[in-house]
Amino acid sequence: MRVNAYAAPSAGEPLAPTTIERREVGANDVLIAIEYAGICHSDIHTVNGDWGPQPFPVVPGHEIVGRVTEVGSSVTRHKIGDRVGVGCFVNSCRECDNCRNGDEQHCSTPGGGVGTYAAKDRDGSFTQGGYSTHVVVDAHFALKVPEGMDAAAATPLLCAGITTYAPLKKWGAGPGKKVAIVGLGGLGHMGVQIAHAMGAEVTVLSQSLKKQEDGLRLGADHYYATSDPATFEQLASSFDLIVNTVSAKIDLDAYLGLLAVDGTMVNVGAPAEPLSVNVFSLITNRRNFAGSMIGGIALTQEMLDFCAEHGIGSEIEVISADQINEAYARVLASDVRYRFVIDTATLG
Amino acid sequence: MRVNAYAAPSAGEPLAPTTIERREVGANDVLIAIEYAGICHSDIHTVNGDWGPQPFPVVPGHEIVGRVTEVGSSVTRHKIGDRVGVGCFVNSCRECDNCRNGDEQHCSTPGGGVGTYAAKDRDGSFTQGGYSTHVVVDAHFALKVPEGMDAAAATPLLCAGITTYAPLKKWGAGPGKKVAIVGLGGLGHMGVQIAHAMGAEVTVLSQSLKKQEDGLRLGADHYYATSDPATFEQLASSFDLIVNTVSAKIDLDAYLGLLAVDGTMVNVGAPAEPLSVNVFSLITNRRNFAGSMIGGIALTQEMLDFCAEHGIGSEIEVISADQINEAYARVLASDVRYRFVIDTATLG
Repeated sequence: MRVNAYAAPSAGEPLAPTTIERREVGANDVLIAIEYAGICHSDIHTVNGDWGPQPFPVVPGHEIVGRVTEVGSSVTRHKIGDRVGVGCFVNSCRECDNCRNGDEQHCSTPGGGVGTYAAKDRDGSFTQGGYSTHVVVDAHFALKVPEGMDAAAATPLLCAGITTYAPLKKWGAGPGKKVAIVGLGGLGHMGVQIAHAMGAEVTVLSQSLKKQEDGLRLGADHYYATSDPATFEQLASSFDLIVNTVSAKIDLDAYLGLLAVDGTMVNVGAPAEPLSVNVFSLITNRRNFAGSMIGGIALTQEMLDFCAEHGIGSEIEVISADQINEAYARVLASDVRYRFVIDTATLG
Repeated sequence: MRVNAYAAPSAGEPLAPTTIERREVGANDVLIAIEYAGICHSDIHTVNGDWGPQPFPVVPGHEIVGRVTEVGSSVTRHKIGDRVGVGCFVNSCRECDNCRNGDEQHCSTPGGGVGTYAAKDRDGSFTQGGYSTHVVVDAHFALKVPEGMDAAAATPLLCAGITTYAPLKKWGAGPGKKVAIVGLGGLGHMGVQIAHAMGAEVTVLSQSLKKQEDGLRLGADHYYATSDPATFEQLASSFDLIVNTVSAKIDLDAYLGLLAVDGTMVNVGAPAEPLSVNVFSLITNRRNFAGSMIGGIALTQEMLDFCAEHGIGSEIEVISADQINEAYARVLASDVRYRFVIDTATLG
């Protein structure tokens, strides 16, 4: 079927309305009438060509919430009318060890996990994302969005939510644990809420104190400015877990110095340039530096259920499709609290 | 008491015979008549001034095995005649969280864990190490060396053994786990034996295949040359744990690429220069880069008991005191399989 969408025609060009073809609903597929699509910083990196050449035109969007309007003959997981979400990937081999362990995003077979847009799917076609009215995906990769959640506020959970939930869960954020979230943006403002709901003592480490009020309202217990060198002395060796949501280059050794024995700092973003690390920073206190990339389907479902239970959503600004380019400019200027969500009804 | 020793008079000068004062045996102390002292690469770094200024004259040696010849009035842990060992530290506050958790080496109070030599002790004096006939230490920091172990071969366990045992234990080396040991030197040859005894599938990653026969004899299942780029393709994403015993600068991203999902690479040495890390190497497969520094007293005891049970010892070359300087030169030339141990009876 032919559906309305917003696409980047080529690298760096403004996005513009277009139509794209969605595949027929296969036996294992669901057709989703999209209600909302979030704008993730990585959408901008991708269409700007920061991450290499792309199969233009590209329809971005990997934070998707909508309603199921058609199900394939073999689908039992979802039914027509269900509210569902789609996150950062829409296919994987489902057979390798990683897929079987629920880490579809680390699918190890050639082709790997298939991104929701600008990725070569297993049938050779290129995927197109959520800035459109409809999408067809394998039912396994559609998450149940609990009824009662605000659909628009739930949309960013599909990327920003799982990206922060996964490391917080894996590295044991909970009662008695001191957790720092570096950066209070789209990812950070989710991380603070989730870590707080998990019962951890949460500290925001932000460049300035500009968003301190927001941070404390979202659940942070403490808020420090990283522009103040005293912060690094005062908090030395104090955290069990640091989740770094900032993709810019940082003084890694300074942040590692904030970890207690067996503490872990997890990067959920990757700066374009390599970081420098003095191994003494790790040997001291037996520290860890790790990376984490979104999360598998089962964990994403767990995250959605957790957020529904704890009343957690993203703080959003709902925009119409014709505001996408302006929203991109504002994201680049850090002028968003905290996520733009496109109302796809405005795609016409 | 005044005892014979070998000391470095100043940075870079050859070691020479001398005498040093050992403190009176306090209520909690034991006096140990040293039988053997191992030569660790860090002894050489220290006396050469590679790690900054030192309180010369310095008597190195933090791999010590001997017999208890006197015990303080409050000591119950050891008795006269017991064979004991002393490792890399001889004091700590015993009260901070880290000490109470058995991580005395990460003692967090000012002064921290006190190194066995060239360190300021809590009474303000400087410690002197094992290249001597006797040492007095707090009984808590003396390990029981199981009778039946070869005392000379057990000596390097106090540093090289615990340094590799600690990360292998912490990161779960065991049946079904694929473990790589980078470097087959003093540390690596212990790591291979221990990982094998723990039941892991062990691979040695060494610059060349020169020591392949040794590696396989010590318990490795596989042996690869890191000078061959094919090694990194062939072993991509395959290890659960990599213990890097090499302190030289390496291509960290290449090694991280060898880790499977949730795999960890642990450095037990620290190169003088910082390493460069592309965070994508960590985000891919949710990898970890960690550091580990020796191990606490309880874990060191566990390691000694484990090695006794599994018949594990260091491969050593026993030397006399007058061969120390020559041994240093040979260590620097990597001409040792795998550890020099000084017979302290030759100190006169």
